[in-house]
Amino acid sequence: MKDTRLSRLEAAAQALAFPLNEPIRIGGNYVPALRHGNEVHVSGQIPRIGTTVVCTGKAGSEVSLDEARHGARIATLRALCLLREAAGTLDAIERIVRITVYVQSAGDFTLQSEVADAASDLLVEILGEAGRHTRTSVGVWQLPKNATVELDLLAALRPA
Amino acid sequence: MKDTRLSRLEAAAQALAFPLNEPIRIGGNYVPALRHGNEVHVSGQIPRIGTTVVCTGKAGSEVSLDEARHGARIATLRALCLLREAAGTLDAIERIVRITVYVQSAGDFTLQSEVADAASDLLVEILGEAGRHTRTSVGVWQLPKNATVELDLLAALRPA
Amino acid sequence: MKDTRLSRLEAAAQALAFPLNEPIRIGGNYVPALRHGNEVHVSGQIPRIGTTVVCTGKAGSEVSLDEARHGARIATLRALCLLREAAGTLDAIERIVRITVYVQSAGDFTLQSEVADAASDLLVEILGEAGRHTRTSVGVWQLPKNATVELDLLAALRPA
Repeated sequence: MKDTRLSRLEAAAQALAFPLNEPIRIGGNYVPALRHGNEVHVSGQIPRIGTTVVCTGKAGSEVSLDEARHGARIATLRALCLLREAAGTLDAIERIVRITVYVQSAGDFTLQSEVADAASDLLVEILGEAGRHTRTSVGVWQLPKNATVELDLLAALRPA
Repeated sequence: MKDTRLSRLEAAAQALAFPLNEPIRIGGNYVPALRHGNEVHVSGQIPRIGTTVVCTGKAGSEVSLDEARHGARIATLRALCLLREAAGTLDAIERIVRITVYVQSAGDFTLQSEVADAASDLLVEILGEAGRHTRTSVGVWQLPKNATVELDLLAALRPA
Repeated sequence: MKDTRLSRLEAAAQALAFPLNEPIRIGGNYVPALRHGNEVHVSGQIPRIGTTVVCTGKAGSEVSLDEARHGARIATLRALCLLREAAGTLDAIERIVRITVYVQSAGDFTLQSEVADAASDLLVEILGEAGRHTRTSVGVWQLPKNATVELDLLAALRPA
């Protein structure tokens, strides 16, 4: 099997029981991803598989660090799928420029960076150096649908 | 009456009792909007009319969903006014690229997306397809001046 | 002594007891700053000097407004150092385009703008008009390592 960005995405999705070929639906009058020039913005993604949010509640009390990291990986896979769709192929990605990771946190939970590391590691695992990004991670009070993690990103594409 | 972006902005502002022709003041050593190349960044806007924040407190306890959605619309109108000023005219807007919506939330309030939908709908109502954006909405613990909603945006202008 | 951006950065760093010449380390599979075209994104910075976070806890209860403002200044110095490294020199900065300031806040603390003002003022003090940016400030529930403030930024460089 060839070792490509796509094959690595497929392997990660399989390991995380994430169905790559289901369409990712979002509600509301907005778009999941938008290409402008050579940049693609991806809307905030929560760890949803199909219609189920698979990681809900506050990290540090209702949700363990490991579970929150799993949630971060699922949100990252969704973002990558949307990015791939907007870019045509993962190979068009020049660089993940920035990600912001929001972690729904218990009052004494300060390991937001450790949650975000799961997203960062997965991006680099799949995209290599092109996956190394700038990052902001914060601990928020609530997230849509009680999700534990939400992640958005900005990517740069190779000039056409 | 012609159906233009400006006429739709005026109609929305009238319906929401928002005075379009008052200057929007901000404090601090920063700018309400900044054009860089063909992009305009708009600073975080809270639902302020003149000097009064018209929607304060936590959504889900002190503030109903409907009130929070009203706050989101006012913040959106402010952002659009600032964008219009930076761009010269609403017609120069090629696309709203991204919005981030912060909702000051009660502990069990998870309808941040539904609050943000009010902003998204208004952008599309006024700008049409050009108003369809990527979006991140999160539930935060506090906002400046106890505002219920804060919204910032990035827009792309038509190449000159 | 010449009055340059660098001399003003050095003066501010000295006044804040911030060591300019120590390397700024970050953990994780991400980068502290990334240049893409003429833009530089800087990752979220907390008020860390060496390996110590010098301002921790919630603004408004455990941390005073003045202390939180100090934390915002240290985070800003870190961001400027990283930006300088990515840009080669502070003189290459055309504009600070945007900053986002996250303030870990007590439940009744609504002075997030006043905390962020310390960052905005410092940027303008060092960079002059080029330091005037768009801004979003929010009050969050937790930040990595219990930091009181986190700040990220986007800067535009002069075309080469």
